[in-house]
Amino acid sequence: MSRDLIVALSGGIGGAKLALGLSHVVAPENLLIIANTGDDFEHLGLSISPDIDTLAYTLAGLDNQVLGWGRRDETWSFMETLETIGGPTWFRLGDRDLALHVERTRRLKAGEALSSITADVARRWGIGPRIVPMSDDPVRTKVLAEAGWLDFQDYFVGQQCRPVVRQLAFEGAAQARAHPDMIAALASPRLKAVVICPSNPFISVEPILAVPGVRAALAGCGAPVIAVSPIIGGKAVKGPTAKMMAELGLEVSAAGVAARYGALLTHYMLDHQDAGATIAQTASVAQTMMRTLDDKIALARAVLDAVA
Amino acid sequence: MSRDLIVALSGGIGGAKLALGLSHVVAPENLLIIANTGDDFEHLGLSISPDIDTLAYTLAGLDNQVLGWGRRDETWSFMETLETIGGPTWFRLGDRDLALHVERTRRLKAGEALSSITADVARRWGIGPRIVPMSDDPVRTKVLAEAGWLDFQDYFVGQQCRPVVRQLAFEGAAQARAHPDMIAALASPRLKAVVICPSNPFISVEPILAVPGVRAALAGCGAPVIAVSPIIGGKAVKGPTAKMMAELGLEVSAAGVAARYGALLTHYMLDHQDAGATIAQTASVAQTMMRTLDDKIALARAVLDAVA
Repeated sequence: MSRDLIVALSGGIGGAKLALGLSHVVAPENLLIIANTGDDFEHLGLSISPDIDTLAYTLAGLDNQVLGWGRRDETWSFMETLETIGGPTWFRLGDRDLALHVERTRRLKAGEALSSITADVARRWGIGPRIVPMSDDPVRTKVLAEAGWLDFQDYFVGQQCRPVVRQLAFEGAAQARAHPDMIAALASPRLKAVVICPSNPFISVEPILAVPGVRAALAGCGAPVIAVSPIIGGKAVKGPTAKMMAELGLEVSAAGVAARYGALLTHYMLDHQDAGATIAQTASVAQTMMRTLDDKIALARAVLDAVA
Repeated sequence: MSRDLIVALSGGIGGAKLALGLSHVVAPENLLIIANTGDDFEHLGLSISPDIDTLAYTLAGLDNQVLGWGRRDETWSFMETLETIGGPTWFRLGDRDLALHVERTRRLKAGEALSSITADVARRWGIGPRIVPMSDDPVRTKVLAEAGWLDFQDYFVGQQCRPVVRQLAFEGAAQARAHPDMIAALASPRLKAVVICPSNPFISVEPILAVPGVRAALAGCGAPVIAVSPIIGGKAVKGPTAKMMAELGLEVSAAGVAARYGALLTHYMLDHQDAGATIAQTASVAQTMMRTLDDKIALARAVLDAVA
């Protein structure tokens, strides 16, 4: 049996970029993308799964490249009207994006699993690789700030990451069952490599690792595990990764992320800017900033070459 | 105490037209509009109240005069996207309209009464007269067709009124509490008249009458009760009123509607076309077709003159 299966762990925007790159260089049936659901939340009575949706939009070519988040061809009539009736508007929901939340909520309430709904949407949108939530059970990231524990989206969107983070917790993780397809893939003799996408380690990857069995499955998978640094030259490409690292007392660098993952990784991919960093894992260097589709594809190739 | 209070019973489109006319000739504090909620339903997990919304849109000047239903300046991104993920699309929900349903559902689930939510939206939209649902408890119109009982919106929108109606039922009506403001208004010494708007008697007005206490309150109100015929020259202005009358074995005429209301009415307003009709109540004649705002205002004046 040939080793041809790639498992990618991903959060939202940054992770989805590499996942898109991987989808261009790995056959669809050989790529399993595990989505973080720690960012999921209930808002306006709707079940919202930001990272799953970002992955689906990106892989379907429906991502909004103007905004850098959300749906392409988005309109905002819902939000405008919600404001006129005094509804909560701190979380911006586009009219097209809303369809996904309303229909997902309806199907979840009817008893369908999040992974099944995700797979159906992906199929309808012509997405080749599988996108699987880390768990069908709810896991909710919480942020301990000076004022106390915050729901993740309150911290992330509501307060725009301004509070100083003292600690993170993944509510529900201890009771959540890892998605069986993830566990099966990690145990498969077909497994070629695990790729940890350049997502925020604390809020995008560690929620996945917090689900019981995932760390052990990675440790025992027998294949290379490579992470791509989300830090380039001491800065995060996007989002609060660098700010969080500093607040959590870590060195804000590509090496700091590698140290955080520790023995979980066999390999680590640095940007050219960080080529001299001292890390414990087998290091490779590439251009990790992904602006164009070509950048994404090139980085995907470099990652696969690094573990070949 | 002067008799200055007008209570109007209304369904959707046709009723809202006269309600708008009344709002131009009656001071806001003297007009109480009772909305039918028998058309309400749950769809996509949302609580939808079509007649309340039509009244609110019409009185706020937000009605869609191009479509003849729904919201002005509507967009359809939600519906387009819902279709791409296989969601139910038989009931058209515009992006702006959706805001009302999502926010109402959220507030209902938080324990707020439908009447309170309705009043708040009306206030925010600058609507003068009060719009009060007939009850805060759920009442759901059911249609008995050859194939069995149908939910109202399945009959009305899903099957576009094609099934032959054998019987109507108002599920929940027997347990529903009439809104206390309606009962108080009907018992008020200030009551000048009750106006039954030209809505479908079977599906817009009779659900209101089916709530315990409403018929008795009308019978004992001591003020004129006038209905405006929804039938002009043997035809309904809009919707299935004429078709339903025929299917229920009634004479399809303005007089047929007057006979259906019977002793509930003291007065009845006919269109000029039906001036010769023989009816039991005190008859008046006016132009009842309301195309323009002037038509609506003129009919409202004629109705109030008829009971003066």
